[in-house]
Amino acid sequence: MNVSENYSPLTSETLCRRLGDLDPLKQNVGPDPSGWKVKEVGDGNLNLVFIVEGSAGAVVVKQALPYARLVGEGWPLPLYRAFFEYNALTRQALRDPGSVPEIYYFDDAQAMIVMEYLSPHTILRGKLIKGESVDDLASVLGRFCARTAFRGSDLSMDTADRKADAALFLGNVKITEITENLVFCDPYFAAEMNHHTAGLDPIVDRLRADVELKAAVQQLFARFSANAETMLHGDLHTGSIMCTDSETRIIDPEFGIYGPMGFDLGMLVANFLMAYFSQPAHRADGDLDSYQAWILGTIEGVFDNFDQEFRRLWNTERTGILYPRSLFEDAGQSSEIAVTNYLKSFMRDAVGFCGIEMHRRVLSLAHNADFEEIEDPTVRARLEARNLMFGRDLILNAERFGTPASITDAARAYNSENIL
Amino acid sequence: MNVSENYSPLTSETLCRRLGDLDPLKQNVGPDPSGWKVKEVGDGNLNLVFIVEGSAGAVVVKQALPYARLVGEGWPLPLYRAFFEYNALTRQALRDPGSVPEIYYFDDAQAMIVMEYLSPHTILRGKLIKGESVDDLASVLGRFCARTAFRGSDLSMDTADRKADAALFLGNVKITEITENLVFCDPYFAAEMNHHTAGLDPIVDRLRADVELKAAVQQLFARFSANAETMLHGDLHTGSIMCTDSETRIIDPEFGIYGPMGFDLGMLVANFLMAYFSQPAHRADGDLDSYQAWILGTIEGVFDNFDQEFRRLWNTERTGILYPRSLFEDAGQSSEIAVTNYLKSFMRDAVGFCGIEMHRRVLSLAHNADFEEIEDPTVRARLEARNLMFGRDLILNAERFGTPASITDAARAYNSENIL
Repeated sequence: MNVSENYSPLTSETLCRRLGDLDPLKQNVGPDPSGWKVKEVGDGNLNLVFIVEGSAGAVVVKQALPYARLVGEGWPLPLYRAFFEYNALTRQALRDPGSVPEIYYFDDAQAMIVMEYLSPHTILRGKLIKGESVDDLASVLGRFCARTAFRGSDLSMDTADRKADAALFLGNVKITEITENLVFCDPYFAAEMNHHTAGLDPIVDRLRADVELKAAVQQLFARFSANAETMLHGDLHTGSIMCTDSETRIIDPEFGIYGPMGFDLGMLVANFLMAYFSQPAHRADGDLDSYQAWILGTIEGVFDNFDQEFRRLWNTERTGILYPRSLFEDAGQSSEIAVTNYLKSFMRDAVGFCGIEMHRRVLSLAHNADFEEIEDPTVRARLEARNLMFGRDLILNAERFGTPASITDAARAYNSENIL
Repeated sequence: MNVSENYSPLTSETLCRRLGDLDPLKQNVGPDPSGWKVKEVGDGNLNLVFIVEGSAGAVVVKQALPYARLVGEGWPLPLYRAFFEYNALTRQALRDPGSVPEIYYFDDAQAMIVMEYLSPHTILRGKLIKGESVDDLASVLGRFCARTAFRGSDLSMDTADRKADAALFLGNVKITEITENLVFCDPYFAAEMNHHTAGLDPIVDRLRADVELKAAVQQLFARFSANAETMLHGDLHTGSIMCTDSETRIIDPEFGIYGPMGFDLGMLVANFLMAYFSQPAHRADGDLDSYQAWILGTIEGVFDNFDQEFRRLWNTERTGILYPRSLFEDAGQSSEIAVTNYLKSFMRDAVGFCGIEMHRRVLSLAHNADFEEIEDPTVRARLEARNLMFGRDLILNAERFGTPASITDAARAYNSENIL
């Protein structure tokens, strides 16, 4: 968190000169910087991203900008987010080896990370819009969520380490503020930066008039803001996942903070559900059913793999202060009831956060391509309406969605409802 | 948190020499240290406490020891707890003016706080054992809990300030560890430092064999360990409260950390319930009923005053990120449902923590005088048994104890049960 006063954004022109002397680049790109090819590819909202290629290979150089790209210089954002991204990536690499890009170099003063270039990986959201499937997607994602959740918590860590780490990540104030506003507040009133498809007005009015819904959202917001159970990715949507047809990697944890375990998985599932509801606009009739079924199968698989891996870690790596073995196994008693109750409460949180993410991506500032790329606003509104009403159901009735099948069954029902 | 290598414990003999030059003492005790009278009065477990009296008045000098007094030098404890006590006291003084002793001086290097001498106040626990009542006790305590809970949370504070403060208090690791062990774990297995009244064995065995109970306790432990809702006192029992017959002050917040709102109130009510269940051994028949009724009335009053003050602050001081007015009042909608749901969830937590405190004070290391001063072990076991079984009921059925009267009604029922 020591960004320098000499911070200066890279450009395709200056990159070779500025980074040409760094060993990690020479090794991974090639010894002679004059032969490097630099391409700016940032399509995110907050950063510069370059691919640097040479004789020895390629790397990604990611540098934070002092403002939000999406909005422009009028929305300043601290450069220290690169520090938190770096710290989150190193922890994720330890907790779920192979799940995130390898880091070659970190420059705190320039808010810059040099990391593995993933190729031929592409962003998962694009694949879902195109109708491409990915082998093992559910198991990689379910395990990633379980391993980072469990191994970053007081179920596993030395609590003094977790407390020190939680204190460190409490410094990521301004990035967390984006989530606090765009996710938990803006969707539920006429916030300045909001926009939504015109035809949705009656539904938007209904949601914003629903006091019980807003109270439930705020209760989840209170959990997000205070309940530092584990280190979260913090922004785990399908744009933060890169895949080939058989390999999956998770990127971009600059929203990393300590928060409630259910947050990452809930956000992730929400993005699969939005992919699901948007499919009728992207698929020809023949492929629609089978691809939608694949998405729902992936959702169930993510939950199942999470559950299985979490229980495995519970039984084999429970070395933290919580649920000590002295009270259960060492006393000759199973902790099965305990982990089952724990996961029930996890599930309620995840389902609630899922519903909120489904709302904010349609009502707040940062929308998803899944819906945004639907050109006909009537079609878009009709599909978004299903998504919004299902989101409401998930938030208000989280207790009823205790199994993956209960969620996918309900998704199928909403998918055939004509709300608009 | 910068205790010096020159740290050295005060003694009655060295105090005047070492502190005689300090203006805050000269002003509050008297200009000439040779006329000061020093008395060591520490009856707590962790600290040296002196009363220093002189011509101008008296002060208390509290200095942390590098080990737990109760156990001895074999249990080292960091001196930095004085830093956290000082920081907690200054925040409590701002959030509920007049509720805590005034601070005259803090010496981080010597782990020492010089503060107001409360006189003729005595420790509330002693009063409850003697059968003395205190005017306005319930309203002072209920308001203290509500004000510190509300004003130390994201309902009220600027969230960057709360995050920085939560990060600061995450440093209080070793003191929090005492609570983590003695409160949340030791009561539920045969931990080394435990002791309990011999006749309780059958009940202790039953509690320690109860997996659902232990799972519920651990779920509350998980909330305690991660859910940094507000700055807690952290050790709010009747030994941390000093009263005259009409004035009440709260002392000793060295266990201060950020945690779940319900923790302080739950601990406090537990200590009143233990006072209640112990009364048959301390009161003659004639006074017993009326004094027990006063204690239960105080419990109801604490809850009612908490509820009333919390709702008042909700309506008048809700300036934090949570439950923003933009979603409720500014949209022409009441947030009554939201605060009611919030307080329901608070109540469930408080009731659960209450039950755990009732267990640990009878089964773990640090017992309460309420029961300990009962000489006849048969009588003691009989009264402790009621307390233990009610504690279990509160933990497992927290949802059912949604109103103060439901708790006091159940207490009356347990008070007439012959469990042993």
